[in-house]
Amino acid sequence: MPKVDASNALNFLPENWLTGREADLTEAHAMLQEGRGPGSDFLGWVHLPENYDKEEYARIKAAAAKIRSDSQALVVIGIGGSYLGARAVIELLGSPNYNLCKKDGPEIYFVGNGLSTDAMLEVMEQLKGKDWSINVISKSGTTTEPAVAFRIFKAMLEEKYGKEGAKGRIYATTDAHKGALKGLADAEGYEEFVVPDDVGGRYSVLTAVGLLPIAAAGIDIDALMAGAHEAMETLAKPGMDNPAWQYAAARNGLYDGGKKIELLACYEPSFRFFAEWWKQLYGESEGKEGKGIFPASVEFTADLHSMGQYIQEGERHLFETVVRFAECNGQIIIPNDPDNVDGLNFLSGKPLSFVAEKAFQGVVLAHVDGGVPNLSVTVPKRTANAVGQLIYFFEYSCGLSGHLLKVNPFNQPGVEAYKKNMFALLGKPGYEDRKAELEARLNG
Amino acid sequence: MPKVDASNALNFLPENWLTGREADLTEAHAMLQEGRGPGSDFLGWVHLPENYDKEEYARIKAAAAKIRSDSQALVVIGIGGSYLGARAVIELLGSPNYNLCKKDGPEIYFVGNGLSTDAMLEVMEQLKGKDWSINVISKSGTTTEPAVAFRIFKAMLEEKYGKEGAKGRIYATTDAHKGALKGLADAEGYEEFVVPDDVGGRYSVLTAVGLLPIAAAGIDIDALMAGAHEAMETLAKPGMDNPAWQYAAARNGLYDGGKKIELLACYEPSFRFFAEWWKQLYGESEGKEGKGIFPASVEFTADLHSMGQYIQEGERHLFETVVRFAECNGQIIIPNDPDNVDGLNFLSGKPLSFVAEKAFQGVVLAHVDGGVPNLSVTVPKRTANAVGQLIYFFEYSCGLSGHLLKVNPFNQPGVEAYKKNMFALLGKPGYEDRKAELEARLNG
Repeated sequence: MPKVDASNALNFLPENWLTGREADLTEAHAMLQEGRGPGSDFLGWVHLPENYDKEEYARIKAAAAKIRSDSQALVVIGIGGSYLGARAVIELLGSPNYNLCKKDGPEIYFVGNGLSTDAMLEVMEQLKGKDWSINVISKSGTTTEPAVAFRIFKAMLEEKYGKEGAKGRIYATTDAHKGALKGLADAEGYEEFVVPDDVGGRYSVLTAVGLLPIAAAGIDIDALMAGAHEAMETLAKPGMDNPAWQYAAARNGLYDGGKKIELLACYEPSFRFFAEWWKQLYGESEGKEGKGIFPASVEFTADLHSMGQYIQEGERHLFETVVRFAECNGQIIIPNDPDNVDGLNFLSGKPLSFVAEKAFQGVVLAHVDGGVPNLSVTVPKRTANAVGQLIYFFEYSCGLSGHLLKVNPFNQPGVEAYKKNMFALLGKPGYEDRKAELEARLNG
Repeated sequence: MPKVDASNALNFLPENWLTGREADLTEAHAMLQEGRGPGSDFLGWVHLPENYDKEEYARIKAAAAKIRSDSQALVVIGIGGSYLGARAVIELLGSPNYNLCKKDGPEIYFVGNGLSTDAMLEVMEQLKGKDWSINVISKSGTTTEPAVAFRIFKAMLEEKYGKEGAKGRIYATTDAHKGALKGLADAEGYEEFVVPDDVGGRYSVLTAVGLLPIAAAGIDIDALMAGAHEAMETLAKPGMDNPAWQYAAARNGLYDGGKKIELLACYEPSFRFFAEWWKQLYGESEGKEGKGIFPASVEFTADLHSMGQYIQEGERHLFETVVRFAECNGQIIIPNDPDNVDGLNFLSGKPLSFVAEKAFQGVVLAHVDGGVPNLSVTVPKRTANAVGQLIYFFEYSCGLSGHLLKVNPFNQPGVEAYKKNMFALLGKPGYEDRKAELEARLNG
């Protein structure tokens, strides 16, 4: 189970940072467990690791096996929560260079998460001469970025395999009952998976949304779900020793004390997109009503040589949360140099992980001395089980934390603003008035 | 030349945001041009695009050609400024998936920028069966991360090619006169390139530090340098229409008004590591004495569906700087769908770049309406020339901006703190007292 250590933040927190929040935490916890409170329509994730649809889960595994047998590439179309969770897990458990390093199984390309022409052309080029399939993920089927990408890649797939052949290579993860993509999938006979109504995008990585691409990448989703299930059971117990309570309380306490930025740090480069997933989870859950910690991330030790100066001596409005994997998967021994040119022979024969461990300890003390409170979240190892635990831990803590902040942690009203402007400027029917108004501002 | 548009920040700035800083900008500009003021020992980058060592430059091109002819992979060992610049340019002008997508030339692996065992093992695995070379970049040769990596990869190279064979495949970019790596390179006869004394790491991308890996990746460094040279000439002219003056003044004005976080945004996924380079440049230059804008980055439109909620409605302590490439390199036309399932036929036949352009405009207006000031920096196209311009523009603006903030923009005293702790905890001779003290704190 993820272990939270707040001891290096205590100098920056009032003594009652945890006990003083007991009543609020008890109520927040009860809201999540009992399915009530702001955003209670979106609490399907709370018991998901136990209550998931077993029939669909078996179909996810079968579809992943089929993709791995008949495809050298899988094009995953989705944005936001329909993108970041799968990418986060594939990079963290596979590699940030998964497509280069994979031993077997298909390359995975994430598209429909932006509007870059050149990025899309690159994927098209990579698909040439390969057998491939599509997993299109969209609750509505009308979000611009994935819908445009689906038009383009569906046309490519049909050109390669014919309309009938393509149908067997398109997997649609969408609403169970309604919407444009659901209608199309029914009409065409695509294999379908469900974006549940009661699980918001940023909480959907353990539904078909995340699981199909993750399984297609050859990751053991049984172990992932088992880890999440363990975390679900542990974190369901209220109390001061609940690590989610500790994390939620500590970060709110630090925020109340003027620490406006949380830097999620990790010593593994493969963690980069897991941090992006975490940013969406926390930023979208808490960033509303003019409130919320700004979520940022750093990769150590690399960024100690870029952002390290700022962290050590810049404006004192930040705190740090380090995610630690207690053990690494392999081992490298530092070789001896008879000439000791670099003066590092005191490290000869030691594992590289020893240096990393001492760096972690030294950094915590240096940053605390510099005025940056430090929290750490430790899991045993970079395994599917531990990552399942970590996912659920951050989800549950986020629900608690948003309630402590007195916002609805499960809505995202602000995401519509740019979409409306974009539709208007693009000339979408029905937006004529807004178009005229915006164009006047742009020209004015 | 990069064009700065501050019109969407004016509502958040006092009327005299630019004119009120004329005296300070004039003085900051003169300090950079005349080589005086705080940090004046590190102003070699100012005239670098003209004054670079032409003999060494020719050797860089020759070495890159040799690497491209005899190596299927190049291992680049460096951290901080000896890492981010090259990676930024290779990803921005090549691809974030450069190693997967490259048409010819070697794979490029960046190591020695962290302490992850698993990440290093992955690179070792990728090198199997390939011909490869090393570019080790370190002014001193004793920084822990690159020094440890160099021990390991040098041993591998010697095992493959023998001690003599390896020497011809190691390129050392280091101090011109002194230091551990310089001594070794002289003794072994490695080809050597120089980390200039008067150019700090974060300003070194247009020296051999960045240019050798960039040229090895097949990027036209003549065009890159030409772009930087154009920018150098343009930005050398003082005045209110100098885009570097505008950017430096606007961001300081916004900071003074309580905007503590700058979000660097771009619509190209290939920009991700250029933003990391930018974060080091600004964070390390300005983050000192308890001051400085916190540099963060987002990838649009992807992150409009993750960080978009926070940007639109979270705490109002941020502003946004968008880097725009006015044209993309290729084109994709959105296909028509006779059934118009997604309702997007109003876009049929239009280029994808049209949607991106309208998204950019719509996002600016939405965020401004939400209370987030917007700056934009526009360059014509994602070419080596334009990227050279952009590099110099950000460097020059950063020098000005740091002087406006009244810090020394060219030192980084805070980077030592973690190193000292790490050395002590690792048991480096000479750090015994600190070791005892730190261990007592860790166990206490």
